[in-house]
Amino acid sequence: MTVGAVIVAAGSSTRMGGADKLLANAGGRPVIAHAIAPFAAHEGIDALAVVASEANIDAIRAVAGEFPATKVVAGGRRRRDSVLNGLEALGDCDIVVVHDGARPLVTRELIDAALDGAVEAGAALCAVPVTDTVKRSGVSGLVQGTLSREGLWLAQTPQAFRVDVLRRAHAANDIDATDDAALVELNEEPVKLVAGSRENIKITTPEDLRLVEALLAARGYTAL
Amino acid sequence: MTVGAVIVAAGSSTRMGGADKLLANAGGRPVIAHAIAPFAAHEGIDALAVVASEANIDAIRAVAGEFPATKVVAGGRRRRDSVLNGLEALGDCDIVVVHDGARPLVTRELIDAALDGAVEAGAALCAVPVTDTVKRSGVSGLVQGTLSREGLWLAQTPQAFRVDVLRRAHAANDIDATDDAALVELNEEPVKLVAGSRENIKITTPEDLRLVEALLAARGYTAL
Repeated sequence: MTVGAVIVAAGSSTRMGGADKLLANAGGRPVIAHAIAPFAAHEGIDALAVVASEANIDAIRAVAGEFPATKVVAGGRRRRDSVLNGLEALGDCDIVVVHDGARPLVTRELIDAALDGAVEAGAALCAVPVTDTVKRSGVSGLVQGTLSREGLWLAQTPQAFRVDVLRRAHAANDIDATDDAALVELNEEPVKLVAGSRENIKITTPEDLRLVEALLAARGYTAL
Repeated sequence: MTVGAVIVAAGSSTRMGGADKLLANAGGRPVIAHAIAPFAAHEGIDALAVVASEANIDAIRAVAGEFPATKVVAGGRRRRDSVLNGLEALGDCDIVVVHDGARPLVTRELIDAALDGAVEAGAALCAVPVTDTVKRSGVSGLVQGTLSREGLWLAQTPQAFRVDVLRRAHAANDIDATDDAALVELNEEPVKLVAGSRENIKITTPEDLRLVEALLAARGYTAL
């Protein structure tokens, strides 16, 4: 079984006040380097592609130089196009694991959970149960209503797929989506929920970056 | 304007593996003491009641001894009953701010945001936008579908209310709810969303407690 990994680093950072969150310093190392490291160190992953945007590709290439077997390729117009560009760069694989470069605290354990889920079900994603009450906002910053949080999960990456399942989902649904699993769901093929981690934070705002740095410090992370 | 605060510490800790999360040690101090401190230190808050469960009331009373003006009262059968018990203990107030004792990283800033919102709209809650993709789970741990995260918020506490608004909501809806704002919403009275903080974590699992400890360390918190 050949396994590839695609790390998506082509997003914009609209809520970061101008800085590119993927290149932001977290404990002395760029966010994207933290995100790549556990994939590069995973001996079960045979090929690794990082998908960059036009704006950050040179900087991402420089960072990825630390991980010799990693390819850096250009992203597409939409998130889904970027994932497919990464998939093409991997060459032949049976399973692909897709990860968002803005989640620097990914671990070997999460990668394996997603891979195991994909082998079992065809597609799998890391997720954590919603424990806060969920509100829908209406006009003028007022609450429109409360959703039942029963059965709701916050999806994360890694998400892993049998490559045939992912390609079929992309071919059948030429729409963008906030994650790859959504396309497989639209295709009515099974997607398994596997245990994510609340520490597997996605950096969206400068506040998230501070959370990541606090967790890196708690893990005893020291810059190389 | 008289302002009271009710801190709810009557919940069970079913996902904590036996330990009471409110009494768990976070950086050398019980979680509930962290949650009480910014309310006790707030000169705009005239009365403070902590609502405990039968199982933890003696321990909570011992912790609350650190905050002289704080009353500790017994909770009721449901969350809503506990909130009303707290409200009774406060005596006459114009505004009440309700906080979940399992959120130890509450700040003065969050309390003020909720209070200002309640003065303006009658009811207000701290919340953060949903940035993860939200999935609904179906049978056998498979995903049933993806929700649009557009306009979705994760509700937190503090939540603040004009006391007449909260009492009216409780009187009209004799049901339990995961938060007090939901009862006001059912009453079709306005509830304002104000800026919460991703650091304002609710402890549900031992993993959440580790997150809280990492953030306390990052804030330079040292046990008394």
